[in-house]
Amino acid sequence: MTAASPQAALAQRFRAFLPDSSILVTETERRPYECDGLSVYRRLPLLVVLPEDINQVQRVLRICAELAVPVVARGAGTGLSGGALPLTDGVLLSLAKFNRILDIDPLNRTARVQPGVRNLAISEAVAEHGLYYAPDPSSQIACSIGGNVAENAGGVHCLKYGLTVHNIVQLGIVTMDGEQFTVGGTGLDAPGYDLLALMTGSEGLLGVIVEVVVKLLPVPDTAQVLLAAFDDVVPAGDAVGRIIGAGIIPAGLEMMDNPAIRAAEAFAHAGYPEDAAAILLCELDGSRAEVETDVMRVRKLLAQCGAREVRIARDADERALFWKGRKAAFPAMGRISPDYYCMDGTIPRHRLPEVLSGIETLSRDYGLPVANVFHAGDGNLHPLILFDANRPGELQRTEEMGGKILELCVAVGGSITGEHGVGMEKINQMCSQFSAAELTQMHAVKAAFDPAGLLNPGKAVPTLHRCAEFGAMHVHDGQLPFPELERF
Amino acid sequence: MTAASPQAALAQRFRAFLPDSSILVTETERRPYECDGLSVYRRLPLLVVLPEDINQVQRVLRICAELAVPVVARGAGTGLSGGALPLTDGVLLSLAKFNRILDIDPLNRTARVQPGVRNLAISEAVAEHGLYYAPDPSSQIACSIGGNVAENAGGVHCLKYGLTVHNIVQLGIVTMDGEQFTVGGTGLDAPGYDLLALMTGSEGLLGVIVEVVVKLLPVPDTAQVLLAAFDDVVPAGDAVGRIIGAGIIPAGLEMMDNPAIRAAEAFAHAGYPEDAAAILLCELDGSRAEVETDVMRVRKLLAQCGAREVRIARDADERALFWKGRKAAFPAMGRISPDYYCMDGTIPRHRLPEVLSGIETLSRDYGLPVANVFHAGDGNLHPLILFDANRPGELQRTEEMGGKILELCVAVGGSITGEHGVGMEKINQMCSQFSAAELTQMHAVKAAFDPAGLLNPGKAVPTLHRCAEFGAMHVHDGQLPFPELERF
Repeated sequence: MTAASPQAALAQRFRAFLPDSSILVTETERRPYECDGLSVYRRLPLLVVLPEDINQVQRVLRICAELAVPVVARGAGTGLSGGALPLTDGVLLSLAKFNRILDIDPLNRTARVQPGVRNLAISEAVAEHGLYYAPDPSSQIACSIGGNVAENAGGVHCLKYGLTVHNIVQLGIVTMDGEQFTVGGTGLDAPGYDLLALMTGSEGLLGVIVEVVVKLLPVPDTAQVLLAAFDDVVPAGDAVGRIIGAGIIPAGLEMMDNPAIRAAEAFAHAGYPEDAAAILLCELDGSRAEVETDVMRVRKLLAQCGAREVRIARDADERALFWKGRKAAFPAMGRISPDYYCMDGTIPRHRLPEVLSGIETLSRDYGLPVANVFHAGDGNLHPLILFDANRPGELQRTEEMGGKILELCVAVGGSITGEHGVGMEKINQMCSQFSAAELTQMHAVKAAFDPAGLLNPGKAVPTLHRCAEFGAMHVHDGQLPFPELERF
Repeated sequence: MTAASPQAALAQRFRAFLPDSSILVTETERRPYECDGLSVYRRLPLLVVLPEDINQVQRVLRICAELAVPVVARGAGTGLSGGALPLTDGVLLSLAKFNRILDIDPLNRTARVQPGVRNLAISEAVAEHGLYYAPDPSSQIACSIGGNVAENAGGVHCLKYGLTVHNIVQLGIVTMDGEQFTVGGTGLDAPGYDLLALMTGSEGLLGVIVEVVVKLLPVPDTAQVLLAAFDDVVPAGDAVGRIIGAGIIPAGLEMMDNPAIRAAEAFAHAGYPEDAAAILLCELDGSRAEVETDVMRVRKLLAQCGAREVRIARDADERALFWKGRKAAFPAMGRISPDYYCMDGTIPRHRLPEVLSGIETLSRDYGLPVANVFHAGDGNLHPLILFDANRPGELQRTEEMGGKILELCVAVGGSITGEHGVGMEKINQMCSQFSAAELTQMHAVKAAFDPAGLLNPGKAVPTLHRCAEFGAMHVHDGQLPFPELERF
């Protein structure tokens, strides 16, 4: 008789409190969990568990802690940076069964929900109160609020309404040792350290999110969308700065370049001008009076910046149509390229033109076309590198080029991620973003929550050893963090 | 020959890189640093140092770490929770000489400043660009931005524009071991853990802030103020909920009860109705069109809630006059009472009426009058307990009653501090706010930055031992953090 395999031993322990249907053992059952939205990385987890209450999560984690088995938590698996990529020797902890909306408080404008609830389902559930949940990642139909918190997700409207961290007030957490507690609060400012913000965007490395209290906003009285076409991307970039500089805060301010326009148009038939070098979509929301004034101001600014055409949606249908193209941009790439790789960097708005031309140069050097779709208002770029994974070496070239784009973002004072997180994808670029002292401090924070390093190991924050191997030269805003230090 | 005193030994080490004028040794020199704005607590620091560059701060901290001497950092010393209260055996590190505005970037709407710069000085410096720094604590003429960050300061306008944490993008930090690094970034979302938010409001326990990059906002086109008088505080409280509930976000929404009204009027002659049970001040800002619409909507709501009188400021002078009374409320207390104790709790807005009557009951029980001044819009209460420190036992009774008020805030689902921090003042109430697991996690985070516990010890986060002595029963939003746990 042979000793039980690690997998069998684990499954045995879990059966004490989980039904067989909540423990996935066979390869067929585990296969769907081998990757998240970043499908270039795939790993089959040792075991998948689907607990349905906090107590079960605590027991799963205590057992894994006891046996030193790493754990990767997973929401809907729509993440684009590989944050939910499993480990072959680890447990994949799915929060899919945490799908209940527990409480809606219209007076305080909050909703208490389980982490597996879909982003859009929250807005649907509170619509009757004239409220909604603002952050809207493109995946909002499918992505879960727990995953949104783990990656501090953004979306088209985060320019005006902020990222996930600005739209949640409280989290229920279970730590790797099975301890559960609450961070944040429904008051104005929770005393003590801001563990709510620390947990948000920590990519599953500090604890497992088991409950989320989100902020709700009143649905704006009205909204209007302008579509502006440009014969050159540079004036389009300038227009973005001019609109923000005028003190207008659009609900959304999106930019697409010609390859993105053509792909989206062919796919969604939104009526985009296919010969334009770039289009801007500017959404304004608020009270009728406010929106009317701002629409006129934005139209004027766009004309001043040399827009060859400015359209104002005639009605709700046309507004929806203007957005349909933008929202279809990612899937539309499938029509013009077998594969695409979506980057996610941020830059100071006024560096947009030079970064665009930098990307163009890289595109030529690597012989890989790029379609640019981005949240221009907050300088969050989503260059889509088009490639064919079947051509030998092309994936590697794509990843290398992607890395170069992110380093370009850091060099102009931006960052390597806007809203998709670091995950597996950008872990090397973290070495260019942060100094050894900064990374060391992050590891100390990690150890304060998960000393054994069992939660989502190898993601988000690189070891100094890894950075040394990667050989990154740390730059910060293109300069030393504290110029005056040079004086000593 | 006797060994040098600890004070002399320290001063000796500091003289290696600091001029004598930056090392305060005599009692007369140290006396001004014995307390901050919470003057009921006083301690003479062992030594006061006034470094003027980051390198000097690093060297001071390295020496203190080496000699295990505790350090308390101090900005302008206007804090109201004793966060800058020195230790008799510790070094008081004043950032007063870090008073330069290093860089103003109108395009990205940011300013890089040293921590000793006064809050209002930032807005003054950027006014020429039509920009300002939004958070406005009542002490904004005097308080420093470094202190604002340490306490996550708010102010009259944080209802619309957020607390300090929402208005800064980057911090320069020096840790207790003299390591310096940057947290946050000028991009949309800095990758890695959100150490910017973690540092903000950490009350000097995690590191010393040596540089701050603040967000700047465009000065609104216009602003208008309404003053509403009520014969009862309950409808005034309801009106607050109705205004917010209508989706209007005032720039400021302040409430004063009768004792506060009378004191303020006698002091500032703002033309407040002295016989009113409560007044509401509602400021609306934005574009002309937006403000005009909202003024009408608010006036209607106030009337519906039974305001006996609603005034709309006729011009800028009257707007200033309306605010003059509110801003004078704290100093005005000096006219009706020898001493006053300013509390700072938050509650869910809709619990306002019951909390007000709860405070009234406590006031009767303790025989101590209370004047209520608060940021009603975000439920941030500032009850001012009036007392006479010369009457034996009255200070103790005042502090006890203050504690009861904060516990009342926690019981209704609020928190023990809105914007003043915990400091020394509310450390016992932290035991009612947080569970042992939550406090333990906070201590682990502290240890990740300052393992020896030398930075501002004894403040903000109580030891479990202290909580046991205090004998607090942990409540959370009036219930267990995770009700469903009771099922197991």
